[in-house]
Amino acid sequence: MKLYQQLTEQIATLIREGTLRSGDRAPSIRQLSRNRGASPATVVHAYELLQARGYLEARPRSGFFVSSAWRSSQDEPTVSQPVRRVAHPDVSNLVFEVLEAMRAREVVPLGSAFPSPDLFPLRQLARALAAAVRRMDPWSTVEDLPPGNTMLRRQIAQRYLIAGARVLPDEIVVTAGALEGLNLALQAVTAPRDIVAIESPSFYGCLQAVESSGRRAVEIPTHPRYGVDVDELERVLDRENVRACWFMTMFQNPLGATMTTDSRSRLVRLLASRNIPLIEDSVYTDLYFGKERVKPAKAFDRKGLVLDCGSFSKTLAPGYRLGWVAAGRFAPEVLRRKIMTSLATSIPIQAAIAHYLDTGGYERHLRGLRWSLQTQQAAYLSALERHFPSGTRWIRPDGGYLLWVELPASVDAIKVHRLALEHGISIAPGPIFSARREYRNFMRLNYGHPWTPKVEAAIRTIGRLIRECSR
Amino acid sequence: MKLYQQLTEQIATLIREGTLRSGDRAPSIRQLSRNRGASPATVVHAYELLQARGYLEARPRSGFFVSSAWRSSQDEPTVSQPVRRVAHPDVSNLVFEVLEAMRAREVVPLGSAFPSPDLFPLRQLARALAAAVRRMDPWSTVEDLPPGNTMLRRQIAQRYLIAGARVLPDEIVVTAGALEGLNLALQAVTAPRDIVAIESPSFYGCLQAVESSGRRAVEIPTHPRYGVDVDELERVLDRENVRACWFMTMFQNPLGATMTTDSRSRLVRLLASRNIPLIEDSVYTDLYFGKERVKPAKAFDRKGLVLDCGSFSKTLAPGYRLGWVAAGRFAPEVLRRKIMTSLATSIPIQAAIAHYLDTGGYERHLRGLRWSLQTQQAAYLSALERHFPSGTRWIRPDGGYLLWVELPASVDAIKVHRLALEHGISIAPGPIFSARREYRNFMRLNYGHPWTPKVEAAIRTIGRLIRECSR
Repeated sequence: MKLYQQLTEQIATLIREGTLRSGDRAPSIRQLSRNRGASPATVVHAYELLQARGYLEARPRSGFFVSSAWRSSQDEPTVSQPVRRVAHPDVSNLVFEVLEAMRAREVVPLGSAFPSPDLFPLRQLARALAAAVRRMDPWSTVEDLPPGNTMLRRQIAQRYLIAGARVLPDEIVVTAGALEGLNLALQAVTAPRDIVAIESPSFYGCLQAVESSGRRAVEIPTHPRYGVDVDELERVLDRENVRACWFMTMFQNPLGATMTTDSRSRLVRLLASRNIPLIEDSVYTDLYFGKERVKPAKAFDRKGLVLDCGSFSKTLAPGYRLGWVAAGRFAPEVLRRKIMTSLATSIPIQAAIAHYLDTGGYERHLRGLRWSLQTQQAAYLSALERHFPSGTRWIRPDGGYLLWVELPASVDAIKVHRLALEHGISIAPGPIFSARREYRNFMRLNYGHPWTPKVEAAIRTIGRLIRECSR
Repeated sequence: MKLYQQLTEQIATLIREGTLRSGDRAPSIRQLSRNRGASPATVVHAYELLQARGYLEARPRSGFFVSSAWRSSQDEPTVSQPVRRVAHPDVSNLVFEVLEAMRAREVVPLGSAFPSPDLFPLRQLARALAAAVRRMDPWSTVEDLPPGNTMLRRQIAQRYLIAGARVLPDEIVVTAGALEGLNLALQAVTAPRDIVAIESPSFYGCLQAVESSGRRAVEIPTHPRYGVDVDELERVLDRENVRACWFMTMFQNPLGATMTTDSRSRLVRLLASRNIPLIEDSVYTDLYFGKERVKPAKAFDRKGLVLDCGSFSKTLAPGYRLGWVAAGRFAPEVLRRKIMTSLATSIPIQAAIAHYLDTGGYERHLRGLRWSLQTQQAAYLSALERHFPSGTRWIRPDGGYLLWVELPASVDAIKVHRLALEHGISIAPGPIFSARREYRNFMRLNYGHPWTPKVEAAIRTIGRLIRECSR
């Protein structure tokens, strides 16, 4: 790593960890260049990078300061305190109302769950697809039935190895996106009426899967920065007959929270001691902003109890619908469920992604994508600073493209959602992320779309609507 | 239609309807040419076509005879007499054992549910896929979310119109193959523990769907030539609280049976009078051998109660995993289930098939495919005549590529299946098509693979094993 890169990462870490706080002046360029044996130009280069990533901001004639978007902890959203009682979720209708609102091309998709399709190498993928189908062996229509294309599963297994987890191709079942994988995993490890521990707030797809399959949910308090509260989980496990956990321990949707490596490892140990499977939704794993990728729960799994559900939809190939489950000891059952549910995952699509991964370029694309998301995050957060009223709070996530915003207590986010739609803007109101429609005054924003004046105007409008609704 | 084609179709009809029976001499060439004002060469051309399709056989120095493969009715398999009591199916383990056996490339796939991939225009599809993704609008990854690609749904609706059914694009939900569609349809119209009327024998995917979703099944007697017995169904409806029917009224799997147009229309009326939804698995509809396509149940549907589940997997694009549900009044619920289960159907795949259908060639391909299947059917049936012991029975289906064979009462088809596998041959034993593992002495054979000496040897081996098992 070059010196300017080292400096960039070190200062970013100081800011992320809170050593340098919002509004603090950055170390002077002269001082730093002297201490580190770097030329002033090198330091300036590092600072400009940090500025582009939203860590620093330049003030005319004053130098560099930690960006005001880096909030101190008293400005963070409240930690969830869900009712820790078992419930049948009942949220689908509201979710569909909100999802439907995002379909129109002209709507500013702040409520969307997808990043902009323009961020992906669609042209290279099209080439890979064309090349893969041209050379497709007709027999592959039989051979690539579940568990799926062998080359693809080997490449996925190699990616786990890089992330620090040992996963054999044999335990990987290819699925039509992560959502199918998560549903299959849930069916494989639980029966109707079983209790599943979920985060609060949690991804609405999780709530819907629990609801539509007749499982019951118990919601665990989840910190907007540090994720699932393992102590609380342990108390719930003592009390309820929990048969599985469905968590997203990295860049959680909607919070953006990431458990520390220690607490994730503790979580896996706790569940192992009670033989409880962990369904991990890891679709954002590759979208980390830090120096290193986050170690997934699977890396600590000694008993094959972790079912890691991944996907290329958020990182490479939106709309292709290609995901997988690294299902540990449950692989045979997930495989059977896959065959019964949809027989197979599209075979040309499997071949295309395998071909793309094989011919390289994925890591380079991922670096670019992370850079874009981080840069967009900075722009969005700085607009939030400008346009949202005081009393709104958020945390800057370390990856992904989703942001959890707490509004003043009097604001009804569903009302904001409906008003915003009249202005051609979508947001994701808090209640769609709760089995009991809690989080009335929260919303999730998507910064996965390039920063444009139209987006800025949309954020200004949302800010105005929040103010109006809080009166 | 040219004269030789007219002659061909007329004589084929006489044979199919039983006016001309197995072993009958065909009308003399001289006589027919005189009566119809055709040259003898025209009649010979027609007879050669009928021979190629398996209707006639030429005997040296004796002329043309109706092929011995056209059995008379006393040779037909027995009509099913299932226990008409409600049950939770319990067949999955056996099904998976059998399916697993067909994965190896070197196995002769008489037990397979797929036709040979070599029968499909994979190269043209590859070109369509390449062309479609090259011009794909990134925004289509949002726009083609369920219900799915607009152009594709319009083309599917047009195909229904040709088949005599009025279906609007709006009631079509694109799915990842018919099996996903069938599962979504079942979930949309029933709840756990509800009773579903199914055929006996029935497609194992249906049994597994009922089993894994916690529904219960009541099996309706099903004639190997004429399909579901509507009188019996009515009696069952009087007695049991049936919440849906899941039938395959055209070229049923495994029987090959097709209901008459009258009884299919009566079925739809009966269900309409009781407001019971009909889930129709129509994946073989386009593989008819007669002059005209069979009118689907959807053509008689006045109340939007028929959920017609189709697919391109058996007719155009194996392994692409593209199907649909024409869901009538249940379209909104099927749509929601689709979103919750797998979010979307692969968007490049939708675009590719839409592009292929748009640029033409599908009807021409279908004609060739039907011709191949019909020719293969003749070759397979004639080999069965030669190699299977007396006491085995079957019916020549009017379409599709599956054949239901009754073995002598003492033969255990599961034993035949296991012995056959040792010889590198798969068959589909009867019990996988029954909720109670009935049909012990039945098996399903696939004639969807080109006729080769290896296939002939395989059929000879199966014949020998049947003889050995009947001792």
